[in-house]
Amino acid sequence: MQSSEGSFFRGREVLITGGLGFIGSNLAGRLVELGARVTLIDSLIPEYGGNLHNIAGIRERVRVNISDVRDTHSLRYLVQGAELLFNLAGQTSHMDSMTDPLTDLEINCAAQLRLLETCRLYNPKIRIVFASTRQIYGRPDYLPVDERHLLRPTDVNGINKMAGEWYHILYNNVYGIPAVALRLTNTYGPRMRIKDARQTFLGIWVRLALEGKPFEVWGGEQLRDFTYVDDCVEAMLLAAARPESTGHVYNLGGDSVVSLKDTAELLSRAAGGAEYRLREFPAERKRIDIGDYYADDSAFRSATGWQPSVPLAEGLRRTVDFYRENLAHYL
Amino acid sequence: MQSSEGSFFRGREVLITGGLGFIGSNLAGRLVELGARVTLIDSLIPEYGGNLHNIAGIRERVRVNISDVRDTHSLRYLVQGAELLFNLAGQTSHMDSMTDPLTDLEINCAAQLRLLETCRLYNPKIRIVFASTRQIYGRPDYLPVDERHLLRPTDVNGINKMAGEWYHILYNNVYGIPAVALRLTNTYGPRMRIKDARQTFLGIWVRLALEGKPFEVWGGEQLRDFTYVDDCVEAMLLAAARPESTGHVYNLGGDSVVSLKDTAELLSRAAGGAEYRLREFPAERKRIDIGDYYADDSAFRSATGWQPSVPLAEGLRRTVDFYRENLAHYL
Repeated sequence: MQSSEGSFFRGREVLITGGLGFIGSNLAGRLVELGARVTLIDSLIPEYGGNLHNIAGIRERVRVNISDVRDTHSLRYLVQGAELLFNLAGQTSHMDSMTDPLTDLEINCAAQLRLLETCRLYNPKIRIVFASTRQIYGRPDYLPVDERHLLRPTDVNGINKMAGEWYHILYNNVYGIPAVALRLTNTYGPRMRIKDARQTFLGIWVRLALEGKPFEVWGGEQLRDFTYVDDCVEAMLLAAARPESTGHVYNLGGDSVVSLKDTAELLSRAAGGAEYRLREFPAERKRIDIGDYYADDSAFRSATGWQPSVPLAEGLRRTVDFYRENLAHYL
Repeated sequence: MQSSEGSFFRGREVLITGGLGFIGSNLAGRLVELGARVTLIDSLIPEYGGNLHNIAGIRERVRVNISDVRDTHSLRYLVQGAELLFNLAGQTSHMDSMTDPLTDLEINCAAQLRLLETCRLYNPKIRIVFASTRQIYGRPDYLPVDERHLLRPTDVNGINKMAGEWYHILYNNVYGIPAVALRLTNTYGPRMRIKDARQTFLGIWVRLALEGKPFEVWGGEQLRDFTYVDDCVEAMLLAAARPESTGHVYNLGGDSVVSLKDTAELLSRAAGGAEYRLREFPAERKRIDIGDYYADDSAFRSATGWQPSVPLAEGLRRTVDFYRENLAHYL
């Protein structure tokens, strides 16, 4: 990030929902470096991504507020006085959204609408960056997928995230609450949930690799793009700092396209030769799987100058190094 | 409808949510003619479309169950044993969705998801026809709008209806609960709400015309298509009877494209020279207005053979005739 954008954050009051989670905590670390005054909102629900160890290095330099985005009353207080809101809280598990669709709806849909209503009523000048997801595209018609692609979500999570994203754009368009949405692809790196596959399949791969157990690759030929979390954080900062992004929805991709099998191979090497097994896609996952996906993120690159700086092999090495040091805090 | 499809409904157990409303009650009348066993579910919320007078002619030939689609417990009982569900209940006012977005979410989004969960658990073979809306397209990029057009809703109602539609398609795709969605355009005719503009602007036009007061046309140049309610009912029956429509989302249009001004002129003539006034679009409506819209409904026509049979001038005459007879029941 250029110094001009860096100085944009100095002294600013910043809220991050899901602030103890994977991306939220990495974002918090960077914002603290840039001199922002950061409040992290997180529910610390054990099945989700929040983890106090994620902010071990910045614990004294941020304010932590344990509360749930479904708690409209506390949000009413918290949004007042904030200049920027990185709205990252969400239920991210596709499978959980199918077994408990109404909880997914409450968090990803209803809470988002209530949060925007709260901003409209109590702080309509707050600038919002919303973490959306490529999941809402469903199974692509063409590749790479640009923002003109139809949205055809394949699970309840995708439908609710689609609605959540659109509430943001609507409140931008109708009420002038500045909002921008980034449709994230597979984001990975230090501080992601690795206990299970709820947040990303890479999480459980890393865990098993470090525990010396073979990890499972379902299918293997599917193509994906990956964003290293520092690059994702940089994208969010740019989205917040550049007024011309206001009201837009942008894809965020990675620096290359890679098959799951090759990703597994890269991780195996990063972890010193970890084993993995290729297996058939389980039937209950197949029904909500989307096949190949990779993003065309040229609109966001053009608008902000963003580009990813950490290649997958390097990002996986950093990730493995982080969890070697910190494994006990993530199990 | 050909006799083969007509006989499809004979003796069938049919549920209609929103069954005392505009389209639901007209559909009920036709289903009764075709020999179906019809249960109407309606909350009779005064601001919505339900009206017991709508079934004055078939009162003894249908079962009426006053309950709200947000009441999951009663739905659990009601869906059991039903073979067909015409899911028409909804909050339809765009303005109300902006002033009370959470009620709109509860009805158009959360209640739909709960209803589908209820069907999955208690009657997964039920066949569902869902009344979606062209409103979810937002302001068109091109005309006529086909189903490949991006969804970019311009109000909370549009976002929630978009999610509600997708829950149906998802439950079809993942759980095999057969569902089809029709994106309705401006539907009009006997039994529509005319007390105010909550359901359709044509409603308040008809009321004022019959009360001898000038009605207001906002803008006037906007192009629209209209579906006479009997044609809409026929489309819903075809969607229910034709298995090949399962899992699809179809636009439904009209027989011609007409400006609001010309529509006003046709209504004026149908009502014996009613007065109307052209005026500027009010600012608070302009922000959620979509400009011109008309549908490409060729996919539905090809799939089912449907075509509209009542031209706008004729439909407006029938509508005016109905309300001349029944005005007191709709004020």
